[in-house]
Amino acid sequence: MTQPQPLAGIVVLDFGQIYNGPYCGFLLAMAGARVIKIESPQGESLRGRAERSSASYPFAMLNSNKDAITLNLKSERGRELLRGLVAKADVLLENFSPGTMDRHGVGAADLRALNPRLIYAAATGFGRTGLHRDYLAMDITVQAMSGVMAITGDGDGTPLKAGPALCDFLGGIHLYSAIMTALFQRERTGAGAVVDVAMQDAVFPTLASAIGARYFLGRHPARTGNRHFALSLAPYNVYRTRDGYVAIICIREGHWRNLVAAMQRPELLDDPRFADMTARAKNMDAVDAAVEAWTSALDKDAVFRTAQAHDIICAPVQDLDDVLDDPHLHARGMLTRMHHPMLGDAVLPSTPLRFEGVDPPPLRACRDLGADNEAVYGELLGLSPNEVARLRRDEAI
Amino acid sequence: MTQPQPLAGIVVLDFGQIYNGPYCGFLLAMAGARVIKIESPQGESLRGRAERSSASYPFAMLNSNKDAITLNLKSERGRELLRGLVAKADVLLENFSPGTMDRHGVGAADLRALNPRLIYAAATGFGRTGLHRDYLAMDITVQAMSGVMAITGDGDGTPLKAGPALCDFLGGIHLYSAIMTALFQRERTGAGAVVDVAMQDAVFPTLASAIGARYFLGRHPARTGNRHFALSLAPYNVYRTRDGYVAIICIREGHWRNLVAAMQRPELLDDPRFADMTARAKNMDAVDAAVEAWTSALDKDAVFRTAQAHDIICAPVQDLDDVLDDPHLHARGMLTRMHHPMLGDAVLPSTPLRFEGVDPPPLRACRDLGADNEAVYGELLGLSPNEVARLRRDEAI
Repeated sequence: MTQPQPLAGIVVLDFGQIYNGPYCGFLLAMAGARVIKIESPQGESLRGRAERSSASYPFAMLNSNKDAITLNLKSERGRELLRGLVAKADVLLENFSPGTMDRHGVGAADLRALNPRLIYAAATGFGRTGLHRDYLAMDITVQAMSGVMAITGDGDGTPLKAGPALCDFLGGIHLYSAIMTALFQRERTGAGAVVDVAMQDAVFPTLASAIGARYFLGRHPARTGNRHFALSLAPYNVYRTRDGYVAIICIREGHWRNLVAAMQRPELLDDPRFADMTARAKNMDAVDAAVEAWTSALDKDAVFRTAQAHDIICAPVQDLDDVLDDPHLHARGMLTRMHHPMLGDAVLPSTPLRFEGVDPPPLRACRDLGADNEAVYGELLGLSPNEVARLRRDEAI
Repeated sequence: MTQPQPLAGIVVLDFGQIYNGPYCGFLLAMAGARVIKIESPQGESLRGRAERSSASYPFAMLNSNKDAITLNLKSERGRELLRGLVAKADVLLENFSPGTMDRHGVGAADLRALNPRLIYAAATGFGRTGLHRDYLAMDITVQAMSGVMAITGDGDGTPLKAGPALCDFLGGIHLYSAIMTALFQRERTGAGAVVDVAMQDAVFPTLASAIGARYFLGRHPARTGNRHFALSLAPYNVYRTRDGYVAIICIREGHWRNLVAAMQRPELLDDPRFADMTARAKNMDAVDAAVEAWTSALDKDAVFRTAQAHDIICAPVQDLDDVLDDPHLHARGMLTRMHHPMLGDAVLPSTPLRFEGVDPPPLRACRDLGADNEAVYGELLGLSPNEVARLRRDEAI
């Protein structure tokens, strides 16, 4: 017997754009909610950029398993449709600039007056309150503002962007968390909520190690490349191999002994420069040289297999093609190879939220702009195909 | 009237260690759950490293607002205590290596047999299933394995670690998300669940832009430092100012026109090298030189203020001290200055999950190892102080 999906029966109005909101909506869909992506008649900004550009993949990846409808917030008839949908919905999520929905007369207070059970969820760069709420925000500028760039890169270089769009996705997954928290509470109280998640807030905890070094050293740590922020753990680095790189970290004495055994260098155990973590940290260059002398003679997979066999914490540096082909991610169902209408043959992700005995729904490719107008407006608001056609002509949708 | 916290009444057994599990437990506590941090009599590994080291701050930050008890899983009496606690609990979370709890006879199946309403939640590097489930994992090695390092840094350099511990924290917040999803479903079905979150799964979506570039270019993108992965947006970079750096990104033509106006360089609008995004991307070095000619004559705050006034997406690169002092984060209550028993005067974070009309509970400093043994074992299992003292002597706790 198939278990029902956790969010079966929940209806979500997803005004998400670009990465943050759409990721949240995607996870809700993959947990079984009916997620209706609502776009302006021009399409949300990522869709606008998606055609034959590097935005195609992100758009496709973040909008699987959603219905796609259009709705013009600038039209009174459009806003009336929204009010109708809100009466049937459990969650509305958006990541516009703060105040956008209010300016159209469909802000949190307006909509919750119509449906007090609604969870109105807003994701922003800096939050719905506070001095900086109106600052414009994209992942790269939030990386700058939140401290990410200050701690990425080498000490003598420019502050560096982390490659992943971590601000956007930390925003989106915290938004999901807050929505689920509010939905849980609603089961007990019957009341909806207004959820406020700021990317800058969501990024702060990830600075833990760097701030730890700052308090411990009593000064701002330098950018340390691949090394530990307080330079107090060694080995802790990325090492060259014959065909790429591996990362190795030793936290306990046992890890170091295991590594020495793997390297077949027992004499290092008697070397006073490597006697304990404090000594190794002081002689970090010599430690790294010893490790790289071993790794650089081998292929990265050989280093990795030997390391795992010796209980050493190690991994190969995988590039994107390695990751897209990663047999483990495919075996877990996290990645699926499919023929996608927008991308051709491509590998697309499922959800990281897994519940034993309940497989996530199969991936369904993202839909064309407004492709579900007839179905959604018909089913939720009882409109006929002719009425939907008229709405389109009137630019209400 | 104060609103109740969303998770009031929920009891969580938090076996989290280091960052991933503890972050999840911290968020549950800040949403109103009673979170009982359970450690071995030696303390969890981050506590062990915390004393007078750079681990103090992360430990303190991730264990605010939790009760702290000890429990020895290697003792039969200890496991009996755990079974007693599980009967009273809603959630058990752990981020041990897969199979650790099972080896002690207290795995998900054992405990859910005692309490079918229990949510058993496991966070791991690679998941509870699949080929790689037993790989050892820390943030730095998951960064290597998941593709983060392949897309961070400059093309000619070594693959680079992103400064934030994003794998750990993405793991922890996805764990929170999955727990709340299961708690929501339990309200409707009465049944608990086994939750399985892998860091590697949770990181994959953050590669969106880079994978987009990979599909668009038809080859693996080079590491592009602070520039766009497909080199198809400009300006998109970090620029030097008189006293630091700013990040600037122009997505639409309007942003570029606004920037030209802010720079007071109207002639650039007529320059064919900058005619549209395609032209600017082709002449990226010239674009960046023009922008930096402007920024490098000003302080970063002056650039930022001017940019915001012109609707340009820009932010200063803040260092950790700027972030810890950020007036906006303090105004929002995300950061609090306090005298902390472990850290002295320090700035500690609250939760990024915000609900209008419900302030998160005030921060309460992390507790000493086993500080709440009497209170928790007394209240939940009805043990007397003498019985708790005997358990301690017998090394059951």
